[in-house]
Formats: sequence, structure tokens, C-alpha cells
Amino acid sequence: MDSITILGLIGGTFTTASFFPQVFKTWKTRSTKDVSSGMFVLLSVGITFWIAYGVKIGSVPVIAANSVSLVLTLAMLGMKFLYK
Amino acid sequence: MDSITILGLIGGTFTTASFFPQVFKTWKTRSTKDVSSGMFVLLSVGITFWIAYGVKIGSVPVIAANSVSLVLTLAMLGMKFLYK
Repeated sequence: MDSITILGLIGGTFTTASFFPQVFKTWKTRSTKDVSSGMFVLLSVGITFWIAYGVKIGSVPVIAANSVSLVLTLAMLGMKFLYK
Repeated sequence: MDSITILGLIGGTFTTASFFPQVFKTWKTRSTKDVSSGMFVLLSVGITFWIAYGVKIGSVPVIAANSVSLVLTLAMLGMKFLYK
């Protein structure tokens, strides 16, 4: 694996991991008042395009990171809908 | 501009734009109780690596989108610190 791919994998690990504390916090508190639903709607759409972009340029970090991010983003949207 | 770059620019526009409703909501409500600081700390670190990755692979969408995202992520962190 070359150094550029490693750089992307580190970036992808951090940005994807970033959704875990938010999902965990929301799961624990059942409170989403301060969380913007617009943020997670736009994120879901954008991340889908990033996955397509990753496929087209053949970038493993872009595909892998964004696929996990999409699952977590949809989980946040679901909780935003369930816990007002 | 080729179709792959356009795909990345659309993805970047959406994911970057996603931070605006959250920053706007937080700015308006001055309330960050439900927002995870861990999320925005990890995002800031990860986005910095994505910028470096974008520079290395020469991807304009990756560099542009992540630079704006970094500014908005840092704004959220600042507000999380200011408005408990």
C-alpha cells in the first residue's frame, strides 16, 4: 500500500469514526433537539456521490470510508425521526 | 471538466453544505447539548488528512470541499465550547 493510500485511509478512519460518538450520544440520551436534520439529509446525499466518485477513480479509502459513514448518517437520521 | 470531477464536486458540495444547517441552527439556538464534541474533534483531524490526500492525488474536489468543511467544523467546535 502506498503512502497516498495510507493518508486517505487515516482521513477516512477519522471522518468515519467521527459519526460514532454522535450516534452513541444520541442513542444514549434519546435527544436530538440540537442536531440538524438538514445536516444529515445533505450528508446522506453527498456521501452517496462520494462513493460513486470513489468507484470511478478506483479509490479504496474513498469507497470504504464513505460506505460506513453512510450507514451511520442514516442511523442518525432514523434517530432524529424517532427521538424528537 | 470531466464527469468524474463533476461527480466529486457534487459530493463535495453536498457534504460541505451539510455543515451549514448545523452551524446555522447552533448559531441561532446557542444550544449544543445534543451535539457531540467528539464528532467535531475527529472530523477536524480527519478532514485535515483528506486535504493532504487531495493534494497528493491532485483532486480539486477533495481539496476544495474539505477546506470549507474544515472551517465550518472548527466553527462548530468553537460554538460547542462557547455555548454549553
